[in-house]
Amino acid sequence: MRTDLAAGLMVKPESLQITGSFKARGAFNAVLSLVEREPDVAGVVTHSSGNHGQALACAARAAGLAATIVVPEGVTPAKIAGIRSFGGVVVTEGVTYDNREEIAEDIARSQGLRLIHPFDDWDVVHGAGTIGLEILEDVPAPGALVVPVGGGGQISGVALALSALSPETAVIGVEPDVADDAARSLHAGTMQALTSDPATLAEGVKSKSIGDRNFEVIVSNGLVRDIVTVSEAELEDALRVAWTRLKLAIEPTAALTLAAYLNGRVPPGTAEHPTVIILSGGNFDPGTVAALLSA
Amino acid sequence: MRTDLAAGLMVKPESLQITGSFKARGAFNAVLSLVEREPDVAGVVTHSSGNHGQALACAARAAGLAATIVVPEGVTPAKIAGIRSFGGVVVTEGVTYDNREEIAEDIARSQGLRLIHPFDDWDVVHGAGTIGLEILEDVPAPGALVVPVGGGGQISGVALALSALSPETAVIGVEPDVADDAARSLHAGTMQALTSDPATLAEGVKSKSIGDRNFEVIVSNGLVRDIVTVSEAELEDALRVAWTRLKLAIEPTAALTLAAYLNGRVPPGTAEHPTVIILSGGNFDPGTVAALLSA
Repeated sequence: MRTDLAAGLMVKPESLQITGSFKARGAFNAVLSLVEREPDVAGVVTHSSGNHGQALACAARAAGLAATIVVPEGVTPAKIAGIRSFGGVVVTEGVTYDNREEIAEDIARSQGLRLIHPFDDWDVVHGAGTIGLEILEDVPAPGALVVPVGGGGQISGVALALSALSPETAVIGVEPDVADDAARSLHAGTMQALTSDPATLAEGVKSKSIGDRNFEVIVSNGLVRDIVTVSEAELEDALRVAWTRLKLAIEPTAALTLAAYLNGRVPPGTAEHPTVIILSGGNFDPGTVAALLSA
Repeated sequence: MRTDLAAGLMVKPESLQITGSFKARGAFNAVLSLVEREPDVAGVVTHSSGNHGQALACAARAAGLAATIVVPEGVTPAKIAGIRSFGGVVVTEGVTYDNREEIAEDIARSQGLRLIHPFDDWDVVHGAGTIGLEILEDVPAPGALVVPVGGGGQISGVALALSALSPETAVIGVEPDVADDAARSLHAGTMQALTSDPATLAEGVKSKSIGDRNFEVIVSNGLVRDIVTVSEAELEDALRVAWTRLKLAIEPTAALTLAAYLNGRVPPGTAEHPTVIILSGGNFDPGTVAALLSA
């Protein structure tokens, strides 16, 4: 494992973003764009038990809209509390991972709310792209920009921004090797999907496949150089490095990019053309962190 | 306990500083000033098992000097590894908390090294003062600036800087209530000392009393408005808030200031005149943090 964390490495800690993850960017862009298009809209709805749910509740409240978040039964109380702390209404009765999208669509139709998809939505993608714009303000010519990949919202936004403003930068995605659907989609050139719930600590990237809009950017338009994978053991080690050496309290999903860097899956970077890794969020489960720190 | 963390609060995360604490500031200033005064000096020595030891080893290496750090027997291996990672020579055989200062002085004399005291040293104090200068670049008129107090190096540097450039700002120190020597010194107007090793999680502020130079700034010259105290339970809660809500992986000593804020011991701050709390470092013991996060 690489031990130098200085020479050619820079980090973008989205864990310090409002709502604790990069998802605020897409949620705010989607909500503000919606209000511009439909000033009389009553509110928004989505299906996300994680960071997008909190972010959408926060953005909706800021815009004076109602937000309903459809959450599968059994999700940890901390996540539900997070959504409610931003004024979001949580719907959980009878909700499973399989029917939640359908339930959200029903609520949208029956209550006149607009569905804001967590990643397969151009406003959400473009909001995530602002990470790329900010990185270029600090680092004019990154050699590589490394992004976690779940549904593909974050990496497609960043890839759109970088392809326009810094096309030499290699945008590289990272997945857990047990949830490598996007890597397989990119390498095959056709949409690939997971067939079961992947056993990974990186709970933020468990979606079965990337979205259609994300496929268009990542695969059809070829704006992502590669998608690499890391093992669960590499992810655990990277988390410990983030907490003990970078001193950043990130969530497991955010450590995907650091794991790829530490294990040589992405270029090491140079002073002139550093490798920038996005640490996507900090909404960790305290028990999980405690177990890894004492291991 | 206060739960808002936005309105009038700003944090200065010295946990993200090189060597993981604010101590790098004083160590670099002391070493660079020493080299300017004595270009042929062979090296430096100090007695500190904690953050000052690592910081001095780092600063010495940057200046091409040798560094010897006198460390009491039984200190955790992680701290010794930290000092050695910066090329410092660790002396530990026969060293106790009581004789370490004397041993360091002996080494200084016999080997021609210069002793750099962890806090009772003007170069170290002035280096720490750069925290104040940086805060004023971002926040022109803080209502209060809140600083952990151990030996008093950090707060006396910050108080000197603020008294010159922002005299309206209240510089306020924080101690554990079981290690309240500096608070008692300030309130009595005479030097007070701890009589036994205090049982506090905040291991960075266990020194028996503040230094003479620090007393001069804090008490004689009256540059510190007040020194308040927090309980161990309040410190534990604040550490959890730092990790889970600020997303900053700080050490227990750094949470002193957040504990004082959360429990209303310091002014809440306003948008125009915020309260700025210094989070002094991030060199935590993983087992300690794991226990607190799983509690």
